[in-house]
Amino acid sequence: MTKRIVLLGSTGSIGRQVLDVVESFPDSFEIMALAAGSNTDLLAEQINKHRPKFVGVGSQESAVILKDRLKEPAEILTGNEGLVHLAKLSGIDLVIVAVSGIIGLVPTLAALDSGTSVALANKETIVAGGSLVLEKAQQKGVPLIPVDSEHSAIFQCLEQENKEAVDKIILTASGGPFLTYTREQLANVTPEMALKHPRWQMGAKITIDSAGLINKGLEVIEAHWLFQVPYEKIEVVIHPQSVVHSMVQYGDGSVLAQLGCPDMRIPIQYALTYPERWYNKFPRLNFLETQELTFQRPDYKKFPGLALAYQAGKTGGSMTAVYNAANEVAVEMFLQGKINFTRIPEIIESVMTEHHPLKTFTLEDILTVDSWARTAARKVTEKY
Amino acid sequence: MTKRIVLLGSTGSIGRQVLDVVESFPDSFEIMALAAGSNTDLLAEQINKHRPKFVGVGSQESAVILKDRLKEPAEILTGNEGLVHLAKLSGIDLVIVAVSGIIGLVPTLAALDSGTSVALANKETIVAGGSLVLEKAQQKGVPLIPVDSEHSAIFQCLEQENKEAVDKIILTASGGPFLTYTREQLANVTPEMALKHPRWQMGAKITIDSAGLINKGLEVIEAHWLFQVPYEKIEVVIHPQSVVHSMVQYGDGSVLAQLGCPDMRIPIQYALTYPERWYNKFPRLNFLETQELTFQRPDYKKFPGLALAYQAGKTGGSMTAVYNAANEVAVEMFLQGKINFTRIPEIIESVMTEHHPLKTFTLEDILTVDSWARTAARKVTEKY
Repeated sequence: MTKRIVLLGSTGSIGRQVLDVVESFPDSFEIMALAAGSNTDLLAEQINKHRPKFVGVGSQESAVILKDRLKEPAEILTGNEGLVHLAKLSGIDLVIVAVSGIIGLVPTLAALDSGTSVALANKETIVAGGSLVLEKAQQKGVPLIPVDSEHSAIFQCLEQENKEAVDKIILTASGGPFLTYTREQLANVTPEMALKHPRWQMGAKITIDSAGLINKGLEVIEAHWLFQVPYEKIEVVIHPQSVVHSMVQYGDGSVLAQLGCPDMRIPIQYALTYPERWYNKFPRLNFLETQELTFQRPDYKKFPGLALAYQAGKTGGSMTAVYNAANEVAVEMFLQGKINFTRIPEIIESVMTEHHPLKTFTLEDILTVDSWARTAARKVTEKY
Repeated sequence: MTKRIVLLGSTGSIGRQVLDVVESFPDSFEIMALAAGSNTDLLAEQINKHRPKFVGVGSQESAVILKDRLKEPAEILTGNEGLVHLAKLSGIDLVIVAVSGIIGLVPTLAALDSGTSVALANKETIVAGGSLVLEKAQQKGVPLIPVDSEHSAIFQCLEQENKEAVDKIILTASGGPFLTYTREQLANVTPEMALKHPRWQMGAKITIDSAGLINKGLEVIEAHWLFQVPYEKIEVVIHPQSVVHSMVQYGDGSVLAQLGCPDMRIPIQYALTYPERWYNKFPRLNFLETQELTFQRPDYKKFPGLALAYQAGKTGGSMTAVYNAANEVAVEMFLQGKINFTRIPEIIESVMTEHHPLKTFTLEDILTVDSWARTAARKVTEKY
């Protein structure tokens, strides 16, 4: 049976790898829609290869450019409304949300509302709107499959019948390229230094997030929502080799772990084939060649962004949306060379301090909070 | 709901730990029968504590001694017939076969034949009579739950819906106390040296088996039968820390692993509570304290007993029963100081070479082969 797929965010790092996996099983998937922001060159190439009936692109201008390059006609939609339209297409088996940032939230809710399974490769959607997304998924009884390697690992280790017996979720973190840096060295980190991630090939935003353990903070919040466990039961452990992608400790003393080569195509494929596992030719772990796996406590003082994630999560309500939005702005400013690396968590903390969190919220509320936090983050920076 | 349990082999290392677990959940289990060989002191103590209705003991003499020590009357059965009778009791939820050696085979078949679930802590039963046991379990649709930490780990990592997608079973081995010894040093190993196992507290036989990787060989054969995978797909990996208890690699590149402290009560409890997991106070792994896990290839030349297990398994039929029986005799002679440690695999190989394996066999056949192999193993030694 062919799986009919909608892929939102096809030109990003995850989106491209989704298509790699799809291409390795030519008879098993059908791409019904592709959407991207402004990379019309790559999007046109993808469309001409996969021939989806529907296409989404960021702006009207991009749509005009794109139209000229298509070998076969396709319906082109634009903007956030376009994403929502694609997410709601009928007869779809899986919507993969691989766009970056908060714009993933509305299409995710739309897909779930239509009863379509969602593979989620967008942390911000859960971090900002976790309560909305989980409520919708539960209400519609629709699976929400994580794509992130860590959450895919947890998803694979979580026994449905023993959810109540989960003692602890152990999220592993490579620790990033600055694991052994001092505070002073961290202050002088440049975007170029941060973009050289030792293990995973990822986009710029997530690479910067990883370097400051803020990516792990976002993942802690994501795990809280996806697996419905309190923050006290989520533990971050530094594991520089990135072989163990995460673990679940049960109340009986057993720990289940998922391991693999650091290749995002493995969790991506799992999300595409779940609950099945299909043979592929991706690299394999080899325990016969000497392997050494190490684990240690993270340094919350050196990486305060991780501690702030727990603080935002425990405060709850709209605070995690603020954590996420302030971070997005701060990372952008760091990449533009406007602030030091160590300013990122300081800006987040400052905006969090200003925020009076809403305990419960609607989609509109959370988008308003998100905008407010972005503006607040820019203002904080201007003060200095 | 109380689980009604029959425990065969209650005074051995596994049997005692089964009762530890049972005692830690006083309202959840009811011991219906206990059986042991000749340790009437401990058996009497266990009976007076757990008050089973039925008791099994090795000989008529032991029965007489035992009877005097019981505070309440219980029906006392003797010998192998006694074990079979207890295994066939009606109204039982789980029979735990924790006796040592080939005598576990007949009661295991009897329990399965009665439709009672079996928790198997006896390798020899599967190694000698794997085809008989698995055929019976499948015919009756009765679960066979492994107790061994390695096989429990595999059992926990094996997704029912993805059995076809198993690429490889990765059995971990501590490597024993002589991992770094030379051949010459191995020849001079004494029983006392071998009995100091670095990680697990176990009986003498299994400790010697572990020291020569023959225990791992038995486990390879056991895994072949329990999980119905060809020998080519079973890989032994040395992992001296004994934290990862075994792993399953799937065709999609994912590896699932079960980890825990080296405490047999954890897999024992899992077998008792399966498919549930119950909270306990056994020691927990702590990844926040620096942990280092290493993996390496086993040295088949230094530990030929492991290679012989693969050879016996691939030959199939009655050959694995010969491997097991010859090993039991050789270990016994080593413990009595009659042979060198390195003679153990030599004796096994010699008896295997003499044997003309039966492709298919009945229970009687395999018991005959077992006797023949024991006699042959003794004769081999006498020649030297």
